[in-house]
Amino acid sequence: MDKAFNLFNKAKTLNNNQLRELIRCGDYKGQTAGLSQNMLQTNIIILEKKYALDFMIFCQRNPKACPLVGVTDIGSPFFRTLGSNIDIRTDVPSYNIYKNGQLFDTVNQIENYWNENLIAFAIGCSFTFEHSLIRHGFSIDHIDNNKVVPMYKTNIQNVSSGPFANTMVVSMRIVKKDKINSVFNICKSFHWAHGSPIHFGNPQEIGIAKVENPDWGDAPRQLLNDEVYVFWACGVTPQNAILDSTVPFCISHTPGYMLITDVKEDADIPILQ
Amino acid sequence: MDKAFNLFNKAKTLNNNQLRELIRCGDYKGQTAGLSQNMLQTNIIILEKKYALDFMIFCQRNPKACPLVGVTDIGSPFFRTLGSNIDIRTDVPSYNIYKNGQLFDTVNQIENYWNENLIAFAIGCSFTFEHSLIRHGFSIDHIDNNKVVPMYKTNIQNVSSGPFANTMVVSMRIVKKDKINSVFNICKSFHWAHGSPIHFGNPQEIGIAKVENPDWGDAPRQLLNDEVYVFWACGVTPQNAILDSTVPFCISHTPGYMLITDVKEDADIPILQ
Repeated sequence: MDKAFNLFNKAKTLNNNQLRELIRCGDYKGQTAGLSQNMLQTNIIILEKKYALDFMIFCQRNPKACPLVGVTDIGSPFFRTLGSNIDIRTDVPSYNIYKNGQLFDTVNQIENYWNENLIAFAIGCSFTFEHSLIRHGFSIDHIDNNKVVPMYKTNIQNVSSGPFANTMVVSMRIVKKDKINSVFNICKSFHWAHGSPIHFGNPQEIGIAKVENPDWGDAPRQLLNDEVYVFWACGVTPQNAILDSTVPFCISHTPGYMLITDVKEDADIPILQ
Repeated sequence: MDKAFNLFNKAKTLNNNQLRELIRCGDYKGQTAGLSQNMLQTNIIILEKKYALDFMIFCQRNPKACPLVGVTDIGSPFFRTLGSNIDIRTDVPSYNIYKNGQLFDTVNQIENYWNENLIAFAIGCSFTFEHSLIRHGFSIDHIDNNKVVPMYKTNIQNVSSGPFANTMVVSMRIVKKDKINSVFNICKSFHWAHGSPIHFGNPQEIGIAKVENPDWGDAPRQLLNDEVYVFWACGVTPQNAILDSTVPFCISHTPGYMLITDVKEDADIPILQ
């Protein structure tokens, strides 16, 4: 516990390149929330190339949940548009290996799994707009309390592509009612990171029966009178679509353990120039 | 001439669905600038499916020039996220057929060319931000004078993907120097339509030797003292990359003769909901 805490505090002092180096060596295996601030962090999906085109089309058709910010060349482990030396086999602190829709293993590097039939996708992440909200003076409950953001399955159908369909997964943050417009305005410019919220007010309307029982993450606190639940499209959506599909093999990051890139969060485009 | 003029004036009175119906029947074969205002118009690229993944990755890596707003299912001619009834075989007023990097034919429908190995891509178009600039009180020279926007090859390298590379093509508009910031602010929200300019000031810096000799479109007028040349990434970039590649067969729209969709220009995402 103390060791992990010390490592996290050390990681906080490192820039994106230094931290990725530490992760690559296996010296840092922790969560990445709050680290390398102002640099784009991403969700990761790795698939066999035969599913890649259908998956890219799925992302294009569901841009709020699946904003693609990087793709490797087929068979290459390098995200050359996201950093000068990003190797997806080693540069994420923790990976989930899925077989036939079930979690098969959780590992700290995937060199034994990587082969030339694979392709890796990087998808924008909510850390980006959360950082901007914090810079604008908002407090975010799950961050203040060191919890995982609550995430929910909804009744919002994704637009299908090949074997990928299912429904949208959303994340939730509590906002004061009179700040809703401000939240929309701040978040809409982060179209590489889920953009503006997709719903606020009535969770039942989007198929969430009980806000206190999230499908992933920690339960939120109760609302005060002047507050409202606000929901964003979530990067767990593509994982959920893949696990519900016929795809036999997939690797993702472990939620919360993201890829740290060399692209700034407020860059005009998520491409290193 | 009179007949074309009358048809254009009739077309101007139609909504997007009515106009697409007229195009589908072969009764309107003209340019689409100024028609169905406020609805998203798009560039079109049609390729064999074996090149589709590399091409989608090329678009992801060059988002200012190639903002993908729609993709058909493999072998399907329908853009189901851009409209309720868009058939890419008939719904563009004019198509260019390219073989081995050369223009082979220009036709008004492609039913004889379409087959189940093809896939169609829709890419955002500069009409979108031009309409917004006009609504903000800007005058746009080539529109006021009924000319085609000047377009130039540059020395800006695209990020490559598979057989696709080449350099960025840009379009140019003349802007008053004291309005540059305003132009950037208006255009940056249209990330589905080339977004903010990629350069202003010195054309030589991006490899344009003579602004008066565009590679496509009409020559611009000379600058006044308080004006500056402003350059945007252009949707001709992907065509140019394909024609310079080893891809043997490609269909595009004829420049200026765009696909008219059912998506509003100011929509949050370019997906019909």
